[in-house]
This record gives sequence, C-alpha cells and structure tokens, in this order.
Amino acid sequence: MSSTRTVNIERNVIPHAPGSAEVTFGNTRVICVATIAEEVPSWLKGSGRGWVTAEYSMLPGSTRTRCMRERRGAKGRTSEIERLIGRSLRACVDLDRLGGEVTVTVDCDVLVADGGTRTAAITGAYVALYDALRFWKTAAKINALPINGQVAAVSVGLVGAETVTDLDFGQDSRAEVDMNVVMDDQGRYIEIQGTAEQAPFTDEQLADMLAAARTAIDELLATQREVLEI
Amino acid sequence: MSSTRTVNIERNVIPHAPGSAEVTFGNTRVICVATIAEEVPSWLKGSGRGWVTAEYSMLPGSTRTRCMRERRGAKGRTSEIERLIGRSLRACVDLDRLGGEVTVTVDCDVLVADGGTRTAAITGAYVALYDALRFWKTAAKINALPINGQVAAVSVGLVGAETVTDLDFGQDSRAEVDMNVVMDDQGRYIEIQGTAEQAPFTDEQLADMLAAARTAIDELLATQREVLEI
Amino acid sequence: MSSTRTVNIERNVIPHAPGSAEVTFGNTRVICVATIAEEVPSWLKGSGRGWVTAEYSMLPGSTRTRCMRERRGAKGRTSEIERLIGRSLRACVDLDRLGGEVTVTVDCDVLVADGGTRTAAITGAYVALYDALRFWKTAAKINALPINGQVAAVSVGLVGAETVTDLDFGQDSRAEVDMNVVMDDQGRYIEIQGTAEQAPFTDEQLADMLAAARTAIDELLATQREVLEI
Amino acid sequence: MSSTRTVNIERNVIPHAPGSAEVTFGNTRVICVATIAEEVPSWLKGSGRGWVTAEYSMLPGSTRTRCMRERRGAKGRTSEIERLIGRSLRACVDLDRLGGEVTVTVDCDVLVADGGTRTAAITGAYVALYDALRFWKTAAKINALPINGQVAAVSVGLVGAETVTDLDFGQDSRAEVDMNVVMDDQGRYIEIQGTAEQAPFTDEQLADMLAAARTAIDELLATQREVLEI
Amino acid sequence: MSSTRTVNIERNVIPHAPGSAEVTFGNTRVICVATIAEEVPSWLKGSGRGWVTAEYSMLPGSTRTRCMRERRGAKGRTSEIERLIGRSLRACVDLDRLGGEVTVTVDCDVLVADGGTRTAAITGAYVALYDALRFWKTAAKINALPINGQVAAVSVGLVGAETVTDLDFGQDSRAEVDMNVVMDDQGRYIEIQGTAEQAPFTDEQLADMLAAARTAIDELLATQREVLEI
Amino acid sequence: MSSTRTVNIERNVIPHAPGSAEVTFGNTRVICVATIAEEVPSWLKGSGRGWVTAEYSMLPGSTRTRCMRERRGAKGRTSEIERLIGRSLRACVDLDRLGGEVTVTVDCDVLVADGGTRTAAITGAYVALYDALRFWKTAAKINALPINGQVAAVSVGLVGAETVTDLDFGQDSRAEVDMNVVMDDQGRYIEIQGTAEQAPFTDEQLADMLAAARTAIDELLATQREVLEI
Repeated sequence: MSSTRTVNIERNVIPHAPGSAEVTFGNTRVICVATIAEEVPSWLKGSGRGWVTAEYSMLPGSTRTRCMRERRGAKGRTSEIERLIGRSLRACVDLDRLGGEVTVTVDCDVLVADGGTRTAAITGAYVALYDALRFWKTAAKINALPINGQVAAVSVGLVGAETVTDLDFGQDSRAEVDMNVVMDDQGRYIEIQGTAEQAPFTDEQLADMLAAARTAIDELLATQREVLEI
Repeated sequence: MSSTRTVNIERNVIPHAPGSAEVTFGNTRVICVATIAEEVPSWLKGSGRGWVTAEYSMLPGSTRTRCMRERRGAKGRTSEIERLIGRSLRACVDLDRLGGEVTVTVDCDVLVADGGTRTAAITGAYVALYDALRFWKTAAKINALPINGQVAAVSVGLVGAETVTDLDFGQDSRAEVDMNVVMDDQGRYIEIQGTAEQAPFTDEQLADMLAAARTAIDELLATQREVLEI
Repeated sequence: MSSTRTVNIERNVIPHAPGSAEVTFGNTRVICVATIAEEVPSWLKGSGRGWVTAEYSMLPGSTRTRCMRERRGAKGRTSEIERLIGRSLRACVDLDRLGGEVTVTVDCDVLVADGGTRTAAITGAYVALYDALRFWKTAAKINALPINGQVAAVSVGLVGAETVTDLDFGQDSRAEVDMNVVMDDQGRYIEIQGTAEQAPFTDEQLADMLAAARTAIDELLATQREVLEI
Repeated sequence: MSSTRTVNIERNVIPHAPGSAEVTFGNTRVICVATIAEEVPSWLKGSGRGWVTAEYSMLPGSTRTRCMRERRGAKGRTSEIERLIGRSLRACVDLDRLGGEVTVTVDCDVLVADGGTRTAAITGAYVALYDALRFWKTAAKINALPINGQVAAVSVGLVGAETVTDLDFGQDSRAEVDMNVVMDDQGRYIEIQGTAEQAPFTDEQLADMLAAARTAIDELLATQREVLEI
Repeated sequence: MSSTRTVNIERNVIPHAPGSAEVTFGNTRVICVATIAEEVPSWLKGSGRGWVTAEYSMLPGSTRTRCMRERRGAKGRTSEIERLIGRSLRACVDLDRLGGEVTVTVDCDVLVADGGTRTAAITGAYVALYDALRFWKTAAKINALPINGQVAAVSVGLVGAETVTDLDFGQDSRAEVDMNVVMDDQGRYIEIQGTAEQAPFTDEQLADMLAAARTAIDELLATQREVLEI
Repeated sequence: MSSTRTVNIERNVIPHAPGSAEVTFGNTRVICVATIAEEVPSWLKGSGRGWVTAEYSMLPGSTRTRCMRERRGAKGRTSEIERLIGRSLRACVDLDRLGGEVTVTVDCDVLVADGGTRTAAITGAYVALYDALRFWKTAAKINALPINGQVAAVSVGLVGAETVTDLDFGQDSRAEVDMNVVMDDQGRYIEIQGTAEQAPFTDEQLADMLAAARTAIDELLATQREVLEI
C-alpha cells in the first residue's frame, strides 16, 4: 500500500542530447531531455550566473481521452507543474557554478499519463540534468559538477482513509487528499504541495503521508544513483 | 515574530455586488467581490451541481515597480494562485446545495502588494462568498447556506532560521522557506504549499511552521466571524 | 439637471506610488496610480523626450453584471478610452521637460462603474500625474513641474431631449446623444467626442451640451486645485 | 482651403458582392464591400432585429513605410475606426426593418492611405451598404429599403491656425487640431471627434471647423446621390 | 544511394490508445497515436460523414538545437505538415463508412528529428490509423474496415546532382531539390511536393526522383503490411 | 481546355510603392505590392545577405461567402501560400546582390478569389519585385538587377478525368487532382505541389498536367516580359 509502483529509468534515450532519460512509474511514462544554451533569461543578463528551468507537456494521446495541444498558451496546471519542476531542480544545482550565463532546460514530455506525471518528471529530470552537466564538464565548460545533492519526488494521498504512495490515475481520481513531496538525499523537504480534494486532513494524517513519501523517495534516490552510476 | 500583521476586513465595499470585502494584512490590500451567475462551466452542464471559482489579479500600481497587465494571458503564478483560491473556497461549500447550476465567482484584485496577497485573498474571499450566499438565500434561491465551515489562510516561513508568520515583501524576498497554509475552523488542513526557496527544510522546521500557521489562522477565523457576525 | 453628481478626489491612496488618487463621480469610483519609469517606447528612443501614457481597466465586479477580464487582449472600447486618457494628459504636459527619456504611466482601474468612468478617470489621473511629477521634482530629476495647465473631463448628453451633465449608467443607457468633453483651465477644448446614439443632433443642441460641459468642468478644475493645494 | 480633395466613388467594383464601392479622396483609396449574412451577434439572437457592422484594415503597402498586418489582434486605432464606421452606418439604417436577424458587414480596406481614410471609408461604405440593401430587396427579403437618410463624413482641422478641410497625410501630420465629422443629409451631427493634437482650441475655432465640415459633407452627399442614382 | 535508411515500425506502443505506432527512418523517430472521438468539425455536423485529421509536433529536444514549443500558435511549417498528413490519410479512408460522425485524429510527435519526419509520420500514421479502425470494428461501431488501400511516403532529392532517397538532416541541408512523395499501394500519387531549394530542376531529374520514390515506397508498403499482418 | 483564363497585369497601381502590380486570372484579382526595408530577419543579421519574403491575404469580401480576417493568427493555408510565394521569388533573386542586409517584402492581397489566387499572386509578385529592384537600382543602392530569371505559376488539374489549366473556383471544387506548378523561363521547375483531392493519379496523368502547365506558363512569362518591357 505504501510502496511505489514499478519504477524504471533509462538514460540517454535521445542520441544527440547532452542528457536524457525515460522514466516510468507504473504505466506513467515521461521522456526528460536536458539541453544547454549559452544564454540566460533577460533578468539574469550581466549577472554571470546560470539558470535551470523546465518545460512540461502531455502528448495528446497520453491520456485516455485525447487531450488538446496547448497552442493557445499553457494551461494553469501546466505552468504550475513547470514551475514546480524548475524549482525542484534548481534546489540541487549551484547556479553560480554553471560556467557563466548558461541555461539548462529540461523538457519533460509525457508519453503515457497514469498518475504521478509531475513526480516522475522531477525524478527523471534529475537524471537528464546530471548527464547534461557531465557533458558540460566533458566539454570543459566547467571543472566540477555544480550539483549539491539529489532530488526526487513522489505523490502520496489518502484514498478511502488509507495512506497510499504513488497514486495511479484511478486512485488519484477518488483520493480525499493528494500530496506531492519533493525531497533531497539528506531527507529534507524541497517542496510539499498537499491538497484536500475531498476532505480536509489532520496533523496525524499529514505525518503519515510524509513518512510514506520519505520511504518511497529513498528508493527513488537509490534508483537514480544506480542508473547514474554515482 | 509568530503573529500576523494587523488584519482588517471591511464588508460590502462594492455597493451593487452580492458580496464583497476589502481585506488588509499589514500594507497588503485586496478587494474581493463575489458575484453569482446562473450558469456553470461546460463540463458541469446537466449535472444539477453548482461551482465556485476565483480570479486573481494585481493592479499594475500595486507593486513597487509597476507590473504589467496580463493582456496576453495570465502568467503561471496568477493561474496557480487562482486555482489555489478556488480549491480553498470549494472546500467549505457544498456544491450540491447552491440552488442548481450556479457559479459563484470571487474576484480578488490586489490594490497594494506587500507579501501574502494570496492568503489575504483567501481570507477575504471567504467573507465575500459568505455574504453572496446570504444574498442568494434572501433572494429565495436556496433555503439554507450551503457552507460547511470556515476557511482562512496565512503564509509562514523561515527567515534567518527563524519561523516567521505572515511575511511581508521584504521578509518573503529573503526567506529560506516560504509556505502557504489554508485551514478550516476545525483545525484541519485544506492546502499546504511549502517551497524551499533557499535551503531545504527538516521535519522539525516544518512542524514549527505549521504550528505558527495554526495560531495565526485561529485569529483570522475569529476576525471573519466577528465581521460576518456569525 | 446640468450639474455633476457629487465629486470626490482623495490623494495618495496607494502608499508606495509616486502619485495616486481615488476619484468618485456619484457611485462611479476609479483608482488612478501614476508611476514613472526611466525608459520610453521604442519610437522615442534617442529623442531625449519623455512620454505620458495611460491604461484603463474595469474590475470584473465593477459592473452590475460581472464583466470578463481582458486576458485575450483589450477590447476596442478599452483601447479607445486608454488613448483618450493618454492624449488628454499629454495635452497638459511638456514632454521635453520630463527629465529625459522617462515615461509616466497612469493606470486607471474602475472599482465601481456607474457611468462616466472615462471622464472620472481623466479628472483623477490629472491629480495622480501632478503628484508623480512633484515626486520627480523632489527626487531632483527635474527642476520645475513640466505642466502647462489643468485638464478635466465630463460627459454631457441629451436624455429625453434635455441636456444632462455627468450621466449615470441609467441616463447613459437611454441617452439620444452622449458626449465626452475634455477641457483645460483656459476654457479650451482638448477633446470632443459626441455620438448620436439614438438620434442625430443639431448645432443648437451641440452648443447647449458644450455650455453645460464648460460649467461642470469649471467645478472639477476647482476641486482638483483644492485637492492638490495649488 | 476649405474644399475637399477630388472625390470619386465607383460602384460595384467586386462582381459577386451585393454591394461594393471604391472611393478616393485625393490619393486616399478605399474599397468598401458590403455582405449580408442571416445571423446576428449572440446578444441580438431572438430579438428579431438585424445589425450593421464594419471592419477596417490598411493593406501593408498602403502607407509610405510598410505597415504590419494585424495578425495578433487589431490595434486600438483600428477598432476605434471600426466602431466609428459601424455607429455611423447604423445611424441611417432601421435595424428593425432588415428582414429579421440579418447582419450587414461593410469591410473597408485601404489600398492607399494619404489622410482621411476613415472619413472616406464612411462615405464609401454608405454606397456599398445602400446597394447591398437594394440587393436584399431584389432578393425579396425586404419590401422597402430600411434607410432613414444619408451619411457622409469628412475631416477638418487647424493647420498653422487655418481651418483646413479633408486633410492629406502631410497636413494631418502637422495639424494643431484634427476633427472628424459625420453628418446626415438633414445637416445634423452623427458623430464629432475633435482632438487637440498640438494645442487646445476655442469655441470659435470649433465653429469654423464645423462650418467647413458642413460645406464639404454637402458635396459628398451630392456625390453619393449621383453615384447611387437616387 | 537510392534506398531508404533502416526503417522500423513498432505497433501498440501506447497501451490505452486504440492505435499507435513508433516509426524510425534511420535516426528519425516519430510516435503516431490514433484516437477516435464521436464528433466532427462544425462544417460536417449533420452530414453523417466522418473525418480523419492529423496533428504534428516536434519535441523541443528532438532537434540538435532545442526548438521552442509552439504555444503561441503552430508555425507555418507545422500546419503545412499537418495538412499534408491529414490529406494523405483521408486518401485511403472512406469517410462515409466510419460509422457516422466520427473523427479519427492521428497525433504524430517527433522524438528525434534527423530528416524525413513528415514522411516517417505519414508512413507510421497509416499503421496507427489502421489499428484504430480495427479497434472500432471490434467495438462493433463498424462492420468493415473503411480503408481503400495503403499509403506511405518518402522524401527524395538532388544532392550534388545525384538523386538521393530518404534524406537525413545533413543531406537535406545541402540538397538542391527536396521532394516529398506520397503514394498508394497501386503505385498512384496521392501527393507530390517538390521544391527547388538551391536550383530549379528539369523534367528528367523529376522523373529520376519519382522513380526512386516509387522504389522506396514499395518497400515501406511491404513493411506496413508485415507489421500489420495484412 | 488547356489554356489559361484571360490574364492581365497592370504595373504601378500603388503610386508611392517602389513596385506594384494588379494581376487578374479570369475573375481572380490580386494586388501585389513590393516594398524594401534595410533590415533582415534576425537569423540573417551580420551575414551581409538580403532576403525576399511574401505575405498573402484574402480581403473578407473576396470570396462568395465572406471570409474572416485572420486577426488571431494566419491559418495554415495562408502560411503555406506565403511560404510558397516567398520560395518561388527567392528562386529568381540573388540574395547576395541585394545591396546588403535588405528585405524585399511582396504583399499579395486578393480582391476577388475565383481560383488560382496563389499562382496569380506569384505571377504578379514577380512583376512587382522586378520593379522594386529597378527602383533600388535607380536609388543607387545596387549596380545591377540581382535577378537570375523569370518566375511564373499556374494551376492545373484533373476535372472529370480531363486535364484543365488555370482552374476557376467551380472547377477547383470538383477537381480530382489539383496541382500548382512554378517554373522559370528556362522551363525548369521551381515548385510542384500536386494533391489528389478525390482520386490518386498516375504517372501519365502527371505528365499531361505538367505539359499543360508548361504551355500556360510560357504564355505567362511572355505577358510578364511585355508588361515589364524587358
């Protein structure tokens, strides 16, 4: 009940990209591609610092009922997720040590959506980002990886009053509470987003969910290390 | 350190509106206007249920440096806040008892932004919503107020390793952690959104912040009751 | 019949803004905030001249039936009003003496709309602009106020064949003719916009309306002077 | 000094259209095409009334410096002109007698812009509209032309303190005052839009400009009658 | 010189979709997902006929230099390709026999772009479409597959005066002529789009390119049959 | 059956433009205006090369049923045509000899649409472009016309199994195959776009259509030379 679904991460799935990973959490399947450009957003120009950002999108066929392409602007949900992924990745990167005014963009495109796409995306994006920074070091743009630690994420929730980890679409649809937790490899929180979808929750229920998240994230961090051979 | 800034809520600030409130948290000042329309979003048509939603905007002059109007679509931050306010309000309303396919929209427009605009907006929006539903009952559209409880919100954070409640703009800018907490009047969580802006946070720090939020929200709920005379 | 509704102007309603005013014409209520930025539109770059512009918006709850936010671009009516306010303000400012390539933007946001929002906006925007320029002088950016005179505006019309000044929403809805007049403090016209909504009008009717506007604007100019203490 | 430039109106320039006219005011050249659709804007549905509206656009090559197509939304100036043309045409049509819920759209596309495009458009649009309504009568959709009178328009202004009629681009660029006047064939005003571009104007100057407009419009109305053979 | 790169088509790559295929032409890799909705575009409503359409997009990481998401509207190239894929698929489907007002949408998303993405997309989309129609038959919505024949596509071109088939990105960049050919399984043309990128081409060169395309398409059609087991 | 409709090209129809032409193919009527700006798209900056591009639009009244203005972005068909015209014109211009970083834009606006608008546009655009380059030479910006040859275009198709040249709207609507052919004055292809609207076509039918196109284009090239006096 409190374990994640089968998790798999495959590295280097896009041959020409400096970093890429395909991550599955159960049926959910996301491709994360990290690219590096020697430019920064306008508000960072002249600062000498780099930037890490993310974009997220669901392929139209990724959902049971086809979802529309966001050609008239990203929906609120999409930009919310993009901002979450970006913040999470920046929490583990030292932007001062990216080799100057450099932006790493991690694109997370969902091939199959069966719950937990944003947490899968964060977990896979870390791997793509790591490899892109390795590439950057190999290219002699930096001397050391500007990485402070690992980041992974999982969703937890209350379904029928029970704590559930890594909810699939069906569980998510009927959950009373849905919470996304992002942690680092020192067991500290980077982001907590808990929402009472059906019913408010107590301090005790919160504690249970956070404990379940912690257990699951530990496993995800181990998987990342294994895949990255670090 | 752990108390909110001076909070004030004034009701009925827009004469023709069924419900409205001007809320101040320190310098932050938000006008919340609730209106009712006898229609629902397309995905609710035929359901017999109602809907509660919110919109949020900052007046260009509300910030120290003028911010631009969102005439090419709402920014990610804006829709994130709108979604948060909407979910928070829906948590205290029984959508089946709104008198049919009826939408209550609460518009939250920020006149002065000095930190905590989203939590001030939620706290004030509850008052505007309550009055709009009273109006709906007076108009004989419903027999009873379809309200399950109260909702209020506050921000907490870590600034210089100390827990701070209801951060102003200056505190928010240098906070290590920024967290928005929405609770009901039974002390249960409706939403928790905690972000490590500068540094990840521990379970203990989380507990401290949540406790501070709880204390502050108790006061906000009392202010709401006093203003609403309930 | 030919006098304005009760007019009130309150200065400095937004604490951090260089100039701001809340103006009421009867129930109509508009917040005007003037901000200054040291940049100009691209077509003025390198000219050494400044610019004065205005934006206008109605809060969704300002109208009896909620009006939608203009997030897919401003409506024709909105940009027409913005252009009118901008031209009116520029008529009283010497753009060569703004202290270089500087833009003053006056944002006029309507809290309550009961007719005459554009004329109230112009009348209040003048006050906000004046204070912003005082601030600019205090900040030692200019030696003298670059102001040539005062500007105020009022609507006049024909309702049931009678000349009416400062029409409220109800009068405006049934007016045969609706005219907005902007004048300076030497009794000269800055802008005349007269529209036959129901029936064309004669030279005589035009003269009557202009005379009524002149009387009303004299009072508005006096109110501005009193409020600005000039 | 107070006469219009050479004016020419050619009817039926678009073979398949129910009404069309190409109008020249000096070098300014506008094609006006009136089409009829058996539908009305949503807010008129069920009213049994018709509608008359106009659209306006400048071809990119119509100006000395190529102007951009408005593919990201019409500019403020454009919608202002469209609204003016629409109001002017509706002033001479009885919307209750259009044969039901019918919309006449008059598209005014500027081939060459040398000042006065909006007044040329109104003057030509009347001819296109008239012919479209004749077509509608021939098609047995209506028994009588639902036309109350004629409409024509001209610009007047102050250039170097002199009253000038039908300003070309060069005059318009240096005019102190620019005024557009729309009148019917009984000498009554449908619309007056006077703007102090460089300097405010007095009651006397206003009277002079209106007299010059009246003279010019009388000629335009005669040209329309001649062309339409009415 | 005149053979395609290694071609592979894998069916049913998206578990919940009625039809899907991942197609590779050399490094180029496209996911095609066919979904069915019981609705048609507005201009087909009431016709009783169905519709087949396609959308196309490149993942940002699919190109060597990251390409931007089309969130402000599809680019001209994109809609051109979407229209081409849609027309090609409709050429092999009997829209009257889709089981009523039904739309099949085939989404073609490019994971890796190394030349020939549109021809790979058409070739793979046929497989996804075929499976979706099989699903539709299994669901008892139709009695027979409404398919008239097979469709496949390949690019040919002139590179250094030589005819080349299935150009990769490098060849495409320096090609004098680039041509996309879509054919059915009777050797007839469905679409020919030939462009002189560097130099116009003669009738003879055209004949050579068409012959090369024919040979390659024969192989692609065989691969489709093998994969689909038809 | 295989000849074009009556073709007419009139030069210099827009007095102030460096190059312009009004072209008619039967009822189809297109205004082409070439303008020159001393700037290039961002991706050519610093290259020293020039650029030739085209825009295309249909006036709302150009079609039997009024078509809407593309104010929310150009449709796919429009950008497809714009790209085709641009490529065709670039095929006959030496971009290295435009006198530096200079863009020639040819705007093609359709006054009457009766089939063949894109081929008429290409044929007329060549004339406008030629005159604009002559103007550029007269203005001493270049020493020689940077033109490699002539370009003209025609549509051909299969209607009722017969090859038809220069299809009008009625023929186009019922054509089995529709093909646009762009050629130079050496009888070489610049672009071929053939689409099986109703039925695929054979190699023989292709050859017939191309031969018909060749004949028609020869006449169009002669007309261009006559009009341009070259």
